[in-house]
Amino acid sequence: MIVIMKPGATEENVTHVVDLVRDFGLTDHVIRGTDRTVVACIGDKRGVDKGAIENAPMVERIVPILAPYKMASREVIHEKTAIAIGPNNFPLGGKKVGIIAGPCAVENRDNLLRTAEIVRDAGCIGLRAGAFKPRTSPYSFQGLGEKGLEILAEAREKTGLAIITEVIGLEQIEVVEQYADVLQIGARNMQHYPLLEAVGSCKKPVLLKRGMSARLDEFLLAAEYIINGGNPNVILCERGIRTFEEYVRNTLPLASVAELNDKSHLPVMVDPSHGTGHAHLVPAMCRASIAAGADGLLIECHIDPEHALSDGAQSITPAALAETTKALKAIANAIGRDL
Amino acid sequence: MIVIMKPGATEENVTHVVDLVRDFGLTDHVIRGTDRTVVACIGDKRGVDKGAIENAPMVERIVPILAPYKMASREVIHEKTAIAIGPNNFPLGGKKVGIIAGPCAVENRDNLLRTAEIVRDAGCIGLRAGAFKPRTSPYSFQGLGEKGLEILAEAREKTGLAIITEVIGLEQIEVVEQYADVLQIGARNMQHYPLLEAVGSCKKPVLLKRGMSARLDEFLLAAEYIINGGNPNVILCERGIRTFEEYVRNTLPLASVAELNDKSHLPVMVDPSHGTGHAHLVPAMCRASIAAGADGLLIECHIDPEHALSDGAQSITPAALAETTKALKAIANAIGRDL
Amino acid sequence: MIVIMKPGATEENVTHVVDLVRDFGLTDHVIRGTDRTVVACIGDKRGVDKGAIENAPMVERIVPILAPYKMASREVIHEKTAIAIGPNNFPLGGKKVGIIAGPCAVENRDNLLRTAEIVRDAGCIGLRAGAFKPRTSPYSFQGLGEKGLEILAEAREKTGLAIITEVIGLEQIEVVEQYADVLQIGARNMQHYPLLEAVGSCKKPVLLKRGMSARLDEFLLAAEYIINGGNPNVILCERGIRTFEEYVRNTLPLASVAELNDKSHLPVMVDPSHGTGHAHLVPAMCRASIAAGADGLLIECHIDPEHALSDGAQSITPAALAETTKALKAIANAIGRDL
Amino acid sequence: MIVIMKPGATEENVTHVVDLVRDFGLTDHVIRGTDRTVVACIGDKRGVDKGAIENAPMVERIVPILAPYKMASREVIHEKTAIAIGPNNFPLGGKKVGIIAGPCAVENRDNLLRTAEIVRDAGCIGLRAGAFKPRTSPYSFQGLGEKGLEILAEAREKTGLAIITEVIGLEQIEVVEQYADVLQIGARNMQHYPLLEAVGSCKKPVLLKRGMSARLDEFLLAAEYIINGGNPNVILCERGIRTFEEYVRNTLPLASVAELNDKSHLPVMVDPSHGTGHAHLVPAMCRASIAAGADGLLIECHIDPEHALSDGAQSITPAALAETTKALKAIANAIGRDL
Repeated sequence: MIVIMKPGATEENVTHVVDLVRDFGLTDHVIRGTDRTVVACIGDKRGVDKGAIENAPMVERIVPILAPYKMASREVIHEKTAIAIGPNNFPLGGKKVGIIAGPCAVENRDNLLRTAEIVRDAGCIGLRAGAFKPRTSPYSFQGLGEKGLEILAEAREKTGLAIITEVIGLEQIEVVEQYADVLQIGARNMQHYPLLEAVGSCKKPVLLKRGMSARLDEFLLAAEYIINGGNPNVILCERGIRTFEEYVRNTLPLASVAELNDKSHLPVMVDPSHGTGHAHLVPAMCRASIAAGADGLLIECHIDPEHALSDGAQSITPAALAETTKALKAIANAIGRDL
Repeated sequence: MIVIMKPGATEENVTHVVDLVRDFGLTDHVIRGTDRTVVACIGDKRGVDKGAIENAPMVERIVPILAPYKMASREVIHEKTAIAIGPNNFPLGGKKVGIIAGPCAVENRDNLLRTAEIVRDAGCIGLRAGAFKPRTSPYSFQGLGEKGLEILAEAREKTGLAIITEVIGLEQIEVVEQYADVLQIGARNMQHYPLLEAVGSCKKPVLLKRGMSARLDEFLLAAEYIINGGNPNVILCERGIRTFEEYVRNTLPLASVAELNDKSHLPVMVDPSHGTGHAHLVPAMCRASIAAGADGLLIECHIDPEHALSDGAQSITPAALAETTKALKAIANAIGRDL
Repeated sequence: MIVIMKPGATEENVTHVVDLVRDFGLTDHVIRGTDRTVVACIGDKRGVDKGAIENAPMVERIVPILAPYKMASREVIHEKTAIAIGPNNFPLGGKKVGIIAGPCAVENRDNLLRTAEIVRDAGCIGLRAGAFKPRTSPYSFQGLGEKGLEILAEAREKTGLAIITEVIGLEQIEVVEQYADVLQIGARNMQHYPLLEAVGSCKKPVLLKRGMSARLDEFLLAAEYIINGGNPNVILCERGIRTFEEYVRNTLPLASVAELNDKSHLPVMVDPSHGTGHAHLVPAMCRASIAAGADGLLIECHIDPEHALSDGAQSITPAALAETTKALKAIANAIGRDL
Repeated sequence: MIVIMKPGATEENVTHVVDLVRDFGLTDHVIRGTDRTVVACIGDKRGVDKGAIENAPMVERIVPILAPYKMASREVIHEKTAIAIGPNNFPLGGKKVGIIAGPCAVENRDNLLRTAEIVRDAGCIGLRAGAFKPRTSPYSFQGLGEKGLEILAEAREKTGLAIITEVIGLEQIEVVEQYADVLQIGARNMQHYPLLEAVGSCKKPVLLKRGMSARLDEFLLAAEYIINGGNPNVILCERGIRTFEEYVRNTLPLASVAELNDKSHLPVMVDPSHGTGHAHLVPAMCRASIAAGADGLLIECHIDPEHALSDGAQSITPAALAETTKALKAIANAIGRDL
């Protein structure tokens, strides 16, 4: 941490800051510049709120130096981690790119089983669909619950696809873990700490979506919560952020994929469906995500988007899925990967 | 809802949309403009995902007309609601402005009781402090838990202040409701629906903070979840949004106060501490909030901010609190209210 | 400036950075922390692009220390500056708050003269109206040009109000300076440097609007361009920023008023009309701005907003203006100022 | 345009709106829904400020229907436009992707000529470099002026590369047009209308950068200004937007490429250097841009980024450029294009 004093800070002001720094168990190092004095503080106290020093007289601001996450970072694990998912132990984060597709929600058994076959035939490795749905409005469709999970398990048995589904509260973790291969934490729950801690004691891998206004270090700290809880198998998923842009539901910032690959050893996926909100933009953003270095994709696909019970606007058709995965294979090959 | 067709949409495209609209149980009304056709849809189907129509051929976009919330809106309750809080039943949302202050977290009994007296003497009507803390980092101070609640209850007994404290998960609701006067839902949980539903069956009023990237209609829909769950006593609290601004922790958009007063009958508070992140900006934003029409404030105040265990940078001193409330009284009077 | 090395940086990496720092004419100061090394650099080289060092091997990032602006800062001029404007030399930035109101554009002589009287009678000190209009669409009303300036000058003669109008290009500066009392630089031109330099050699005060996505230091650097060009009379004007908020045209972040008052000696105004985009939100934000410490306001007011040629949605009526200024006087008094 | 009335609007309120609509020369169409009345307005009046109607009593909001731009849209020109640039008339917007690279600024003759050779050898079709630099700080390097243009022209002669350079003010247009093949309008000038109009009467193609907080329709309206001025050869360039993200200088939203390709016939380029601000993110975003459907790239490349006079942090090395263009060729081929 570095404490930057305001211009005009007196010797007494600096001494006061030095005393506070020592109170925190850190070693101080005062540097007097042309216009200002800064106090560099040495020591590793990630858990202490050093912002408090900002309140001392004539302090302008505090610059933290250490990344506040550790186990999610490349500082601790240098090599990229591959996480085995599903009945076939697909190594997500390895050389092969993994595509997971499916409807927003399990609507009924027939539709889901038909979708599962389409998803498998398109070359995907997983099936996504919500059984418990977090909906912005209390009046919206809320999902089929455990019945939906049973249908998902049946689809896995029939197709060999890995099953990815969301947990929206502590009370569903047990039942979801019983049926699913990967537990999804949604964007709105990225900082719901009791849930992060709880999936930290699960055995199944966790797909953690970036919150729609989360900074990357907050995203990695949320992953850290899960790893810290005992579950090292965390998959990061970029799903777009909220900005002023109006032609999309969210702005999909793909530089985050490159930056996460640089900072963390965890696998990185992208959800171009929530990341755009409109089906016509999804294929281009699937291609761009893989080109940017994503290890996998999470795509909403519905056999009849016009009649989907939720997220219809951003669901692509089976035909579009098949065409997209074909293009993705070519792009993966172009950058030395495969599908 | 209005469906806007792309230029060049054929009669067949329009008929297809009309069919979909009728499938939703809505009445259609086709209007042919100079360059484009639009289909106006009549009927009230708040719970249906009409976005799916966007997938129909040659549809450009959908414009929703109805506000998706009802019970939180002025359409249903025209007059402003006042909610009685604390041992003295202070009517928050009435003519008098209510100031609630206190430290980020209960750190120890002694500090809290001393703070409570300072808060009462400054003319505040409530004491805020966290017993369970949601922290971005798993390595940060997590709060005293039930012990903290007991200290808060003692402070109420000694000062008559209403106690406001946060619930961060379902499992704490019961114990928090036992001790607190107002249950706070934090910004990060504004869309944690299981929690919203759960406090919906509580008897105590709920202070709901706006999520840091929530639109106002999402904020009001979150309130609707709670009201819909059976608890009409929801207090809205603006606490700043995440933007590109760098000199603040959050950007505090006070026009939201005026807009919420216009759209909703619920009381509206402001938290200028999280809303700025820096103690030196808090007094000015307290004054501005009251001038903008806020019914109350939630202020972080610490007897020794330099040594606060959390949020030290945004906590004001007891002296600053006393001076600020004095100025607030003058401003409240200037707009025909009181403190 | 402080250079933060990545964990694992070698002695050779650090030496290489030290060499680069010395190339820039700065003095280095190497600090070896628990996990990382940082290089503090001493010396004042505001004009040099030190970001280049970020490219050196194993450098994580650069933290600048000096504010890049000087003459606009309180480091150089400690006391608040008051700038005399208009025929009566109203000291903007002094104890009295100055309200400037008027239509978006000069539409015709009759309307403008009537508006000027209303503005004066409401207690305002200046009249604003555009003669040259920067419009987002090439098909929109572009203003009356010099004819509009003549009408403005006539209004000043009749009312004694100061005239504030925008310059949108170098070619109009001469003619605008001939008629106006204050030259306005619009938000879209905040970083049009040739224009900033040109008004830097004008004799008349300049009202500089914050760009809709400008950081505060960029805003102050734009002011610095003008001061550096020879014109010290710069009035800063907050007019809202672009965010994800949907109920407003712009988000009006009033903490910027407090922060600008803290960082700079220049007078600070607020434009709540552009800052909200909707007339029903303007009065509340006028009150909040003054309470936050603004030295003045820029308000759009039209005698018949429903028929305004531009910005009708955000223009308040004469009656609303009169009522608002009355409330503002009370608020100004409440904080020890006057109108 | 559609006018949405508030719930509770009376017959009189609706009649008043209908009268206003007719005043604008539009035809009205009143639709009475379950809870609300809307007034659909038929007719094409792009240049009129219809927002004024929002001020009428009991109007909630206005929904515009027509895109406000025309000549930039696919409504008018259905097929994609290819624009010939440089001495070899490279068709930008055609099947082949065009890469333009070079330093931020012309620093000296020797460096630029060496860079030009590197750029050509890497398979690029154009050379970019600023002779006139718009700099945020008045103390920064401002460019070599006409001397820089002469060096650029010499580089074209030696390499056959097209020369792209920025015009920052009206006064330089003539001289820049004399030397350059493509005139660049920078992000900060995207809404400087006098400049847009002026390049509208130039013969050379214009590369228009998206403003850092511009909506897509504002971006296309800026293009419309230029086309409307007489110059149809406008190249759109996405260069990132300002958001809350902290690991990048700007957030690069590649869905805009797909959306612009959908809405407009103009060629679309991407600038991943400004779009990220950090050299280590540039190669991944180059690949992603091409995969998303960009017609070209604008890349900052410097022979010695550590010593660049400006934008060093985001400039890639010659070696990185060569490696990147190789990967881009493979990706272009994967989607049926070429380099």
